[in-house]
Order: sequence, then C-alpha cells, then structure tokens
Amino acid sequence: MQLRAERMKELFEPASIAVVGAAREENKVGHIVLRNIISSGFTGKLYPVNPKSDEILGLRCYASLSLVPDTVDLVIVTTPAHTVPGIIEEAGRKGTKAAIVISAGFKETGKDGALLEHQVGEIARSHKMRILGPNCLGMINTHSMINATFTNQYPRSGSIAISSQSGAICSVILDWAQRTNIGFSKFISVGNKLDIDEADILEYLRDDPLTKVIGMYIEGTDRGIEFMHQAKLTTRNKPIIALKAGRTSSGAKAASSHTGALSGSDRVYDAAMAQSGIIRAKTIEELFDYLTIFSTMPLPEGDRIAIITNAGGLGVMAADACSDYGVTLASFKPSTIELLKTKLPESANFYNPVDVIGDADADRYSFAVNAIMRDEGVSCILALMAPTDIVDTAAVATALAKFAENSPKPFVTAFVGGAGLEKAVNILRTSGVPNYESPDRAVQSLSAMVSYKRFKESKTDETPVSYNGDKVRTKAVLDQVRAEDRLMLSEAEGKEILRAYGIDVPLEGSAKDAEEAVQAAQRIGYPLVMKIESPDIAHKTDVGGVVVDIKSDEEVRTQFQLILARVSSKMPQARIDGVSLERMVKGREVIVGMVRDNQFGPVVTFGLGGIFVEIMRDVTQRIAPLSPNDINTMIQSIKAYPILTGARGRRPADIAALKDVIGKLSQMAIDFPELSEFEMNPVIVGDEGQGASAVDALATIRRETA
Amino acid sequence: MQLRAERMKELFEPASIAVVGAAREENKVGHIVLRNIISSGFTGKLYPVNPKSDEILGLRCYASLSLVPDTVDLVIVTTPAHTVPGIIEEAGRKGTKAAIVISAGFKETGKDGALLEHQVGEIARSHKMRILGPNCLGMINTHSMINATFTNQYPRSGSIAISSQSGAICSVILDWAQRTNIGFSKFISVGNKLDIDEADILEYLRDDPLTKVIGMYIEGTDRGIEFMHQAKLTTRNKPIIALKAGRTSSGAKAASSHTGALSGSDRVYDAAMAQSGIIRAKTIEELFDYLTIFSTMPLPEGDRIAIITNAGGLGVMAADACSDYGVTLASFKPSTIELLKTKLPESANFYNPVDVIGDADADRYSFAVNAIMRDEGVSCILALMAPTDIVDTAAVATALAKFAENSPKPFVTAFVGGAGLEKAVNILRTSGVPNYESPDRAVQSLSAMVSYKRFKESKTDETPVSYNGDKVRTKAVLDQVRAEDRLMLSEAEGKEILRAYGIDVPLEGSAKDAEEAVQAAQRIGYPLVMKIESPDIAHKTDVGGVVVDIKSDEEVRTQFQLILARVSSKMPQARIDGVSLERMVKGREVIVGMVRDNQFGPVVTFGLGGIFVEIMRDVTQRIAPLSPNDINTMIQSIKAYPILTGARGRRPADIAALKDVIGKLSQMAIDFPELSEFEMNPVIVGDEGQGASAVDALATIRRETA
Repeated sequence: MQLRAERMKELFEPASIAVVGAAREENKVGHIVLRNIISSGFTGKLYPVNPKSDEILGLRCYASLSLVPDTVDLVIVTTPAHTVPGIIEEAGRKGTKAAIVISAGFKETGKDGALLEHQVGEIARSHKMRILGPNCLGMINTHSMINATFTNQYPRSGSIAISSQSGAICSVILDWAQRTNIGFSKFISVGNKLDIDEADILEYLRDDPLTKVIGMYIEGTDRGIEFMHQAKLTTRNKPIIALKAGRTSSGAKAASSHTGALSGSDRVYDAAMAQSGIIRAKTIEELFDYLTIFSTMPLPEGDRIAIITNAGGLGVMAADACSDYGVTLASFKPSTIELLKTKLPESANFYNPVDVIGDADADRYSFAVNAIMRDEGVSCILALMAPTDIVDTAAVATALAKFAENSPKPFVTAFVGGAGLEKAVNILRTSGVPNYESPDRAVQSLSAMVSYKRFKESKTDETPVSYNGDKVRTKAVLDQVRAEDRLMLSEAEGKEILRAYGIDVPLEGSAKDAEEAVQAAQRIGYPLVMKIESPDIAHKTDVGGVVVDIKSDEEVRTQFQLILARVSSKMPQARIDGVSLERMVKGREVIVGMVRDNQFGPVVTFGLGGIFVEIMRDVTQRIAPLSPNDINTMIQSIKAYPILTGARGRRPADIAALKDVIGKLSQMAIDFPELSEFEMNPVIVGDEGQGASAVDALATIRRETA
Repeated sequence: MQLRAERMKELFEPASIAVVGAAREENKVGHIVLRNIISSGFTGKLYPVNPKSDEILGLRCYASLSLVPDTVDLVIVTTPAHTVPGIIEEAGRKGTKAAIVISAGFKETGKDGALLEHQVGEIARSHKMRILGPNCLGMINTHSMINATFTNQYPRSGSIAISSQSGAICSVILDWAQRTNIGFSKFISVGNKLDIDEADILEYLRDDPLTKVIGMYIEGTDRGIEFMHQAKLTTRNKPIIALKAGRTSSGAKAASSHTGALSGSDRVYDAAMAQSGIIRAKTIEELFDYLTIFSTMPLPEGDRIAIITNAGGLGVMAADACSDYGVTLASFKPSTIELLKTKLPESANFYNPVDVIGDADADRYSFAVNAIMRDEGVSCILALMAPTDIVDTAAVATALAKFAENSPKPFVTAFVGGAGLEKAVNILRTSGVPNYESPDRAVQSLSAMVSYKRFKESKTDETPVSYNGDKVRTKAVLDQVRAEDRLMLSEAEGKEILRAYGIDVPLEGSAKDAEEAVQAAQRIGYPLVMKIESPDIAHKTDVGGVVVDIKSDEEVRTQFQLILARVSSKMPQARIDGVSLERMVKGREVIVGMVRDNQFGPVVTFGLGGIFVEIMRDVTQRIAPLSPNDINTMIQSIKAYPILTGARGRRPADIAALKDVIGKLSQMAIDFPELSEFEMNPVIVGDEGQGASAVDALATIRRETA
C-alpha cells in the first residue's frame, strides 16, 4: 500500500509510451489517442503497436509490445476487451509498470465483462502493474504535455486536477474550461476503477506541486474508508471539490445502470465528505463555480464580504445571498467611509453594499475597490456590474482584473446581463478573475472558501477519541449470541454491553413488600420511580399507581403502602403482582446509534429523539472512529441543538456526558467489527452535571466477521 | 379605482407623445428618449418640447407643452425635478391623461424630494392623470413600437411583460434577453411608484392579449392587499414570476437605502405570493429560467419527467434534481421500451433516464424523443447533451428544435459544456427552445411549471371562509379596553372574544368543599382535572395534589377528599385554599395567531407549539381573509404535519376543528381591524372528533382605527 502513489509516477509522467491498437484510420480511437499524444507535445518516446501497420503518423509501428526494442513506462490499450488480458500479460513481462485501458466491454456490460475485468486485474497485480480504467477516456498531464485521451479538447495548463468517473463528464468539464479559460494540471478519467480509484489519485495528487485544487466527479466508491483517509490528508493542504451524483434514490438508480457502481446511501457520503473536509458541489455549476475561485484566489481571513455595485438592485441580491449562505456583510471602518465620500458622487451609497451609481466608470470603480481593499474589516470583495450604455464596461473589467491579479483577499466579480457584457466578461476570464453570472453564485462561491478556511482551522486535533471498554465482558455477550445462532441481541444483552463500555443504564428491580422495595431501592439508588405491577391495569397513572421522584427509604416504605391503597380502592378486582422500581432519569431524549456501511464502516447517527428524527429528519451522521471535533460538530449541527443548550428557560443539558456516550459507541464499533447495528433510543440526557443514560438498547451482529 | 387600468391605455398605447426636455445634445436623457421613440418605429405623433430649440432630430420642437397644437396622450418628462410640478400642471390643463416622469431627484433623495413628489402626485390626481415614475427608466411597448426609455437596448417583440422597481435591473434583463433571443410585449420601469405600481400594472396586463407571462422585480410595495387582489385575478390566466429582493435583514437594509421603499417582512411576501399563485424566483437566474420556459412551453399535464441523454452522468444529475425539486421520473409503458429497443444500440439504457450513448446523432435523438413523446405517462421531456467530438451537436440541436416547436408537452434541453456547444446552443435559442446550462436548472424550471399547473387546478373555491362571530359581545370587550386606555387585553378578555367567535376555551372553577366542587364540575363538564390550591405547594403532582381525567360527580366527591388527605399527610403545614377544577383538554399543541401587517393586513400564522415554532421555525403564514384552500395549505405545509395526521401510532388529530379555529381567527381579524395582534398559544387539538380548545389568549389593539 505504501508504494501505491509512488508507482503512479510512471502513469502520469512516463518517459516512454506504447499505444496498443494505434491505427491509421482517422476515426479509430487508437489513431486519435496517438495523434493526441503527438500533438500535445509529448517529448518522450512513443511506440504505436499494431500488427497491420509498419508506420502510423510518421512513427514506426510494431507488430506487438514485445517487439518494441526499449523499455515502456506506460502502455495505452485501445483494442477490443477480449485482447486486453494478453496485452497486459505481455506488458507485465516487459516490465511495464503502468497501463491505461481505454477499451470498453468490461464490468459495465454484465457478468462476462466483470469476469474479464477481474482477470485483467489478476494479471496486473502479478506484475505489480497499475491500471487506469478500463472503459475510460484516458489521462491528460498538461505539464508533461501528454494528452493520452481520445478527446480533441486539450486544455490549457493550470492548477486544477480532475478525476471523473464518467468520460462524458470529462468532456463537459473540458468544454466548459475551454470557454472560461480555465487550465488543468492533470485530467483523469477513472472509468471502471479496476485498480486505480479516487483514493489512489488523491494519494498521488496530494504531493503533486503542480496541483493546487482537486475536482472530482464521483458516482460511487468501493473503498470508502481509504478514500476518507486520503481525503483527510489531502484537505489539510489543498481543497477537494467533489460532485457526487446519484444523490437520491431515483438518481442512484440511474447511477447503477450507468457504470455498475453501487451508490452508497447519500447521507453516508455527505458525512464522509464533511468529515474529510471535502467541499461538496451539489450541481455541476457549483463544481465549476468552486473550481474557478479556488484555483485563482487566496483563502479569505474571515467571512466579511464587501460588495460594490453600479446597480442597487444587484447589491440587494448580493446582500440577500450573504444571509442565505451564512457569510457577513462587512462593516467598514469610519476612515473607509470618509475616504469613499471624498470622491464618490453625493447620491452614492458609502456603506456596504457600496453603490457607485449607474455612471460609474473604471476610475470610480478602481477608487472604490482600492478604498475597500485596504479596510482590515473586509475579508473578501465582490464587484457587481449591470450593463450600461454610458460607460465602457470592458474598461471597468480591465481595471478590476488588475486588482484581482495579486489581491491578498479573494476578489470576484459578477457582471450580470448578456450580450452587452460579453467583451467585459471575456476580459475577466482571460485575466483569471472569477466572474459569476449572478450575485448569488458569487457569494455562494466565496462562502465555500470561508467554509474550507474554517475547516482547516478546526483541524487542531484529529486523534480519535479513546475509551477502555470491557472487551472480555462484551465478547462473552456476543459469543453467547453466536452460540445460540442469533443475529439480534436481547435488550438485556445490549444493556450489558453498554455497561461494559461505561454507558449508564438505569437500574431496575421489583418488590412484593415494602422491605423488599427498600432493599431494591438501596441497590438502585435515588431518585427513583415506583409503579404498580399488574397485568390488569393499563393506565397506571390514572389509578394513582405511579409515583415519581422518590428520594429516601422512608418514602419508599410510605409510597409502597399508598400505591397499594389507592389502587385497591380504585380497582379492587385487579391482580397485583407487586411494585416495580427503576432509577429515575430526567432529561432530554436523544438517539445515538450506529450502522455499519459496506464502503465506509461504522456510521454513527445522532439526533433528538422521537418526532425530531422520525418526522423532522433532524439527524447528523459521522463515520467512526470519531475525533472530539467530529463529535462536537455532530452535536452542534442538528437544528434542534438549542434544545440541548437550554432553550426556553431550561438549564443546559449534560453535553459532556452526551459526548462520552457518542464517543463510547464509536469505540465499541471499532473494537467489535461484528456489530452491524447498535442503537440507543432514547438516551436521556440530564441537566448539566447529571449525566446521560441509555434507556433502551437494540443491537444486531453480522453473520461472519472478517 | 375601477377605471385605473382602463386609463392606462394612454400610457401604453398613446397616439401622440410629447417629450419634455428633449435635447439636441446626444448624451442627454431627453435626446436619447426622443431618438429611441423614433428609432423603435413609433407611428403616432411625436412632439419634442424644449424652449432652447426649434427642431430636434428632424422634428419641430415646441417651447412649451401648451404650445403643442394638438392633444397629447402621453407626456414624457426628463427635465430636473423642480420643474416637474409645473409641467404636470401644464399637461393636466391640456387634457393629457398619462405621464412618464423619468427625472430623478424625488423621494429617493430624502425629505425635500419626497415633498416634491407628493406635490406632483396631488397635481396629477386633480387632473385624473396617471403617472409612471418618477426616477424611472421609462416604458417599452414592442407591439406599439415605442421605446420610451433612455436605454439603447430595444428588445424583440414577444410575449413576456416586465415590471421592475430598479432601472438597472431593467438593463440586466434587456441585456440577457438580447443574448438569449427572448422577446417582450411591455417593459415597465416603475421607479418610485408615485402613482402606478405593480397592482395597477397587473390590472392592465391581465387583459393584455399580447402578454402571456409577467415577470416582476420588486423591492417593496405600499399596497399589499391590492397587489394580492390583482395577482390572484391574474394568475388564474397567466403566470406571474416575481423576484423579490431584500429577502433578508441584511438585504432589506440595502433595499431601503436604494429606493426608500420599505421592504416588508419577507415571510409576509412569501405568504402573499404563495397565496396569489405568484411563482417566486429566489435569484435572477431563476427569474430568467422561469421566464424562458413559461413564455415558450405549454403547461404540463402532470409531473412525470422523461430524460434523454448521451451521457449517463448528466442523466444521474437530472434524476437527482427530480428528487430535489419534487417531480417524478416517468415510468415508460412497455410498448415505449420495446420501441426504443428496436433502434437504440444494445448498450443504451431503455428506461428513464434513457441513455442514447455517446455517439448518438440527430437521427437517434429524434427517434428516441419521438418514442417518448408519444408515451401518455410522460408529462415533460428533458433532452440532455454532453459535448462530443464525434457527432454534429448543431444537427442534434436543429432536430430537437423541431420537436420543441409545436410540442404539446413542455420540452426543454440542457446542453452542458462550453465552447464546443456554442453553435448548438445558438440554434436552440434562435428556435425558442428553453435550454439550460445544467440539468438541475432545467428540472427546476419544469418543476415551477408543475407547481403553477397545480396551483391553477387547486383554485376551485377561493371564497373566504365565513363565520358569524358575536360582534356586539366582542365590541363591548374592545370598548372597555379603549375606555381604560389600554392596548393590551387581559387573558380573560381575550378568552371572552374567543368565546364570542365560538372558539372553545376550557371552563374553569374552584371549590372549598366537595359539594361546591360537584356544582362547579357540572358547570364545567367532564372529563376534568382537579388540583390542590395552595400557595405553599410548588410541585402539586409530587404530593398527590393533582388528579386528571375525572369523569363523574361521584369521582369528584371521592377525589376531593383523597386529594386533601394525601396533601395533608405529605405537607401537614401547608395552607390549603381549596381545589381548582378545569375541563381537561388532551391533544397536540399548536399555535394560531394573527399580526396585522401595514402592507398586507392580517397575517395569520400557524405552527406546532413550543420548540417547533421557536427552534425549528416550522411555521406557515397566510393573509386573511383565508379561503378553505388557504387553510388546508397552511395546515399541510408545515414539516410537522404528520404529527397531526397520526404519526407514531397516534390517532389523527381533529383537523376539522383546527380549521375552524384558524378560520374563525381570520374572520375576527377581518371584522375588527383595530385588533393588531391575537395569539392563541397553545391551542390544544384533540383526537378526531374531540375538538380543539384555546388554552391561552394574548391580544392587543391599535391606538387608532381608520
């Protein structure tokens, strides 16, 4: 595993390439790939392989790989699927360490294709060869000047690396980039991911000095845990922006018919991405918008946005968007406002959003931007422009581009309109200024930067929480369950495990007479609840059969008699079995649970109990092992969080105890991989200092443990 | 009022126009307006007015309006603010019935400007003259061929009418339209809305046969009730799409510094728009997207969307969006699938989303669209295309445009990419096919059509609910409050009004002995709750001082004694005042309240009680008078609605009784305009058939009533 990324150097930076299936026919994939490698300016050695030709595109062609009189770093295969195992074997024998299999006809076609794909994988592994694909578009490395794909769109060189699970989405991104003047470092179509997947790519790109931002299109992954691991390491240094399609049940259906990838539950992906610091784009426009700003602008120091506009209405929209996306309208220093007043017209607005009025030209915009840029209370700047007949908008664009060029703060524009702004927009694009078609998208993109900055700053301690559970005691319970060939634990067994992990479970007991009740009470502890035990009484409270908050032996004695007296006066004919006692836990109900996901492992869920989870869907998930930061984020991210901190005049809940419960469940899930589900519903969280207790436990195990 | 719209004919379709302030200097507004009217092809009479010129742009110029030797239907004023009152007076004397005041320097500049504006209004009213503006861009009517604005952008003729409160947003929309080939019927910049506002414009446009869709940019309105009234009448026949800026507190701040309009609370606008069937665009892109589809496509019969794509990934994104926007992926009939199988390649996907594979050309797209279009289970069609080197995308666009042209179902496209699709996208635009830059925006736009269709179909009964409250009794309460110079009603007074409107309020009483208790109980009714009355006992339940669900005289007698016995045994030293009785209401807590808004009148709020309102913000608003449909929508639109219908195994709540409570509050708010607030918190809604009772009432009145 350690050398995986290391060995990808041959894939991305080969000194020699062989194209197997290279052809003279211009419309054949093998021809296009060869031509693209030549025309992109590759300076290494290039060997077409095809038994039917002697020469293609001016290069000597070889009948087979083994006849190539040289080592070959990278083999690109474009021949039919059934020929691929033989070619990979041949390449392996030749010592080649990397291959791109563009050919389709594998897993995506069904069972036979999947078998063939497996066979290719086995051969590659036996030769320690890395494979990109099959069923992919190929790979582009602009810095090594290799276009090893069959698309004609060779992008500009730049700082964005792309990994895409769909070849067509590669085309979409390349086509978009051509219009918007965006450049790439690497462009990788992962196809069926027989070997190289997103986790490998992150491992490689993390240390690629030419890549500043990583963009991904993902439909599903088989190595969720490794993906998260690599993503966490990567996002410490560079942002990852991912569009995960198949978000919803209907979307997921389309995804599995597309590449055969199993889309995991979307909530799990959401959790995995949030936890790894991946910025999730919900639409392809968001992917474009975020790639643009992250590849061109520095991260902001804060979330305070200054807006400058020649049209009040656009300023209002941008201010609305600030509120929508949770960023702040900057308040200017008095000196900034005074400075603005010295040169802006009287009817301008000198406060944020600054309205420089409809006749603002390049000079006035420059003056205002310059004044705002120097204000330390401003973290980001958004310059808006509506079309106008009376001002040269292209000149404004040129002036703003100068500010953007070396801006120490994120500087973006939204020139909003159409035909009349085309020239200006082209100037902005050519100059690398992130320009958006609406104020909202500009603010949304700035807000994505703010979030990423905050994520990076929050990474003080990523060590998972650690608790010492009683593993022997837990194992004994699980052994017993397996011995009885069950998958589901009883409530008592679940509670036994909770106790083994130091999670409080209220004690219970029952008594036939007052002295027995006092003995039980002393074992259970105070305060406690006493309830009449009778198969004949459904509504115990109504007949005076329940007494809560009992605090002493003396009370236990008195209430035992009183309960019996009340009940027998109200329901003289009822059978009385005695009185039950249980420790009284008071507080707010929450749910803490864990379900093991095939891709990502233990997914821990937290939310407020009952309707909050079932109807309001106010829950949050993170993947164990959890760090203290993960647990904090979980608790604080539910909408009902104020209920825990003490809304409506209540005392705050014992959040420290709740954190322990969540952390202990995380530990238990890691310690016992055979646990497939464990739910505490509810956990009663007392007021501050009063602890948290699991009142119910539901657990299941998996049949086999790896 | 009745003739308001009628008299706007002179504004929009004048036979003669005078431009006061027309000038020879090319950069002057008066010159540009005159030039625009000429160049747009206006065929009526046109009179420049300016004492400094004899002739402008080949037209004889008059020194003053009164010297124009003819009647003038429309006067356009571009001279400085202080000259405007005199000009309007002169126009009025001449018998002119409509004026556009382009000049700025009125309300938007402060107090003096506001006074001047008021003066202009008084003069106009005295002459029964309608005024558009001041501080506006002017008006365009493409069918009468008048560009009475100072923008050079004269749009194509089309079926969209625009009303905008910001001149700059007018420019943005015109510039966008020029690029996307969108045409307009009327284009109206309302400026400060001294006279003509959005309500007037809707009244006029409603019957304008040339207008099919109305787009609005609104920052605020002073005549909310009339606006809603006109909107309701309009949306029965044609859609209104409105972008209301100043949505949030920060946005609203920018709005008031922009035009001096007071932005009402955004939630009230949300309610007013929903209730009037206005489609609310949250961003300017949504406004563009919706205008495009509504002006070109028929309304769909259902919400079932068929997707066709040459790239699986785009199909997945579209399917995701269907789920996000609450529309359905259509299921094809077996015959459709069979038909698709006859000609699509084997590796295609024949189910929705249909994947016609990367090499699909115009013929294959046409075949597939044709097959899908005929499926009765399909309500709307979305054709997606990713860029490709191997197919002529422009030819695909041309083929799809033919389907769109007379499609009986909404047909939209999303050609997603950039440079490589420009030619194709231009073909789609020129042909009037709504084409979107992402699958999401296409689906969102289709979903807006589905919502509007549903709104239209729901309009079976818009008559407000009607209840007979006891107005004499209510008035007596309010008179007493006023007589004591109070604004706030006591809880008892509030409950008295509730009883006057037939809203159940649980009866209460108290008793010193068992027989008194029985008498009180007989008055109150069963079941009831008895509680010890003692200033010394804080936790009445803990000492056995509360008994619930008492159902008979006999039980009242027994429990009276038992309560006293229990309490005196537990707290022998406590002072006992007696026992209180109250009718027991069991059920779900909701809040029903009303606050009177300056613009829109009584805003009725509904939500589940406690944390649902305070923390989850799960509330809904509508403006009274409410129709049965409004009340239904309110109750069903909260997220916690399943709690009322019987989630978690409970019986359904008495929703009929809840509806009555909401309807009666609506009636009360209409009957008594002096009520400025009335809140019932909580209303306890029993199980089905058990009614709903207001347990608390909080009411305030306004100092003066109009």
